[in-house]
Amino acid sequence: MTRLTLAIDAMGGDFGPCVTVPAAMQALASNSQLHLLLVGDPDKISTSLAKADSALQGRVQVIPAESVIASDARPSQAIRNSRGSSMRVALELVKEGQAQACISAGNTGALMGLAKLLLKPLDGIERPALMTVLPNQQQGRTVVLDLGANVECDSALLVQFAIMGAVMAEQVLDIANPRVALLNIGQEETKGLDSIRDAAAILRASPDINYIGYVEGNDLLTGKTDVLVCDGFVGNVTLKTMEGVVRMFLSLLKSPGEGNKRAWWMTLLGRWIKKRLAKRFGHLNPDQYNGACLLGLRGTVIKSHGAANQRAFAVAIQQAEQAVRRQVPERIAARLEAVLPKSD
Amino acid sequence: MTRLTLAIDAMGGDFGPCVTVPAAMQALASNSQLHLLLVGDPDKISTSLAKADSALQGRVQVIPAESVIASDARPSQAIRNSRGSSMRVALELVKEGQAQACISAGNTGALMGLAKLLLKPLDGIERPALMTVLPNQQQGRTVVLDLGANVECDSALLVQFAIMGAVMAEQVLDIANPRVALLNIGQEETKGLDSIRDAAAILRASPDINYIGYVEGNDLLTGKTDVLVCDGFVGNVTLKTMEGVVRMFLSLLKSPGEGNKRAWWMTLLGRWIKKRLAKRFGHLNPDQYNGACLLGLRGTVIKSHGAANQRAFAVAIQQAEQAVRRQVPERIAARLEAVLPKSD
Repeated sequence: MTRLTLAIDAMGGDFGPCVTVPAAMQALASNSQLHLLLVGDPDKISTSLAKADSALQGRVQVIPAESVIASDARPSQAIRNSRGSSMRVALELVKEGQAQACISAGNTGALMGLAKLLLKPLDGIERPALMTVLPNQQQGRTVVLDLGANVECDSALLVQFAIMGAVMAEQVLDIANPRVALLNIGQEETKGLDSIRDAAAILRASPDINYIGYVEGNDLLTGKTDVLVCDGFVGNVTLKTMEGVVRMFLSLLKSPGEGNKRAWWMTLLGRWIKKRLAKRFGHLNPDQYNGACLLGLRGTVIKSHGAANQRAFAVAIQQAEQAVRRQVPERIAARLEAVLPKSD
Repeated sequence: MTRLTLAIDAMGGDFGPCVTVPAAMQALASNSQLHLLLVGDPDKISTSLAKADSALQGRVQVIPAESVIASDARPSQAIRNSRGSSMRVALELVKEGQAQACISAGNTGALMGLAKLLLKPLDGIERPALMTVLPNQQQGRTVVLDLGANVECDSALLVQFAIMGAVMAEQVLDIANPRVALLNIGQEETKGLDSIRDAAAILRASPDINYIGYVEGNDLLTGKTDVLVCDGFVGNVTLKTMEGVVRMFLSLLKSPGEGNKRAWWMTLLGRWIKKRLAKRFGHLNPDQYNGACLLGLRGTVIKSHGAANQRAFAVAIQQAEQAVRRQVPERIAARLEAVLPKSD
């Protein structure tokens, strides 16, 4: 393993350095080859850093940034005023080759726009997409995109997402000839929006894509497909719905329950069984797969949940490490070159 | 309680009379005032009816229909060729006053189109919406619409859905001054699609609607709002995603689990505790609230899941009974008259 340097927007997300710095330390502790550039307000970062293990601090460098993009800012405006912001500086470090990837829990629209502006989309990609890898019931994993980078998508975009998703599944998850499906409101060909039906027609005719048709919301976690493609609005709502239900179940499993008049040994045993169940469902815990990858750029950018806690933000850092090691952008570029028609 | 007559499209859904007829018998057994008109192929219906309790058969009338609308038919085509179909005949019985409501598990698009054609929308409503009432974590209930009747919606439609949902919550669920929210991908005002932002502006300015802002997918079951409004594509995907995750959890709770080397008494106790947990989550079981109501028409139409089993289809029939008793269309009409600007 060779040295790996990542840039972290330390100010992004609901909690800023209180979460990003301890998460960075956690990531450093688990990978001795990792170096981190923490971008943001040096005072605030130092306060959080002061509590950290001094041995790890040797692999950290604080990069000052004057401002922070607010999470509720209008993306277009935020991008216009982004010079000197922690998010932009972190992305510039990737652009200049000082870092191999960037992680931010900040404003999604601004991150998407700035990343596109600074790192540029790959040839054949109009707009990058947010992608995550979900665990499924068959002990496998499903690549899902777009999760919110593009609220409206035409058929051409959906097809580009399908190609990128298939590369992810094949090259990173090692799934041979991955099945690709479009998320729709029914399985019949006539269902859904024009953009989806048009994308289906293109994918059906693509010899390079193992297109299997439409998949409905109830099959998100059943492992029916390896790659699930949708527009960013639907993807965001679907993912959050799934996460909400999973969190509700996990919290109900952890709660003491209604009847407390049982014998003490039954209460204890009940707790033990519920704990085991919670463990069995644990791989579905949204904290375990925090971090969506912005696919389609000439560089690696990971978007963490704004509300991520330390553990979840550390997972997002690990996602960035993996994407760099697996050379995701390079592999997508190579595949696009083979699949897409030559323009000259 | 007075006599109640409902028309059932006995041929609709994945299983036709095999499910609809036993479900009809179940509904009849639980309500002595109920009379049912079973519409479809008399031979097939009679075969299923023959097994039923003869005392209940006195409250059943078979209404012959020559054809069935396929569930994968293109709605426009299906409507053009609908004359004599079980779905259309059932709706005509409502139109002619012979039945007070219609229940079908058939083609959603065709049901929506035919219902609009035959029963007509209320004044002020452009297109009806599919609505369901979901249980939530706070032991309350949430009205969600549209669930798939309109795959694309402009702001005017979303506002109409909001008004209808508020009437449902107030008049049928007895929630005073119900909170109304729009489903979106973030809580900030700048988020989402134009149609949603425009609807938000209109709702914010409406003194008659208790509009509380945007709600995200993860709050579908948390009881943050009493009414949740979205377009039919997003609503359908969200509801199905939620159902898929709930079904997965319930099936995992019922499954025996991995380690089978425990003592017999622990296995038994484990089963008992899991059963109790499953019961605790049982109110979230999609079968318990099957049946979406087509709101905004001059009559009551209930759409059941195509894949509904007997128990679930019986719930859809109960929904129709309740909607008729609570005079849902009349109450929505009255409220619309008060809220909407007069056109003359």
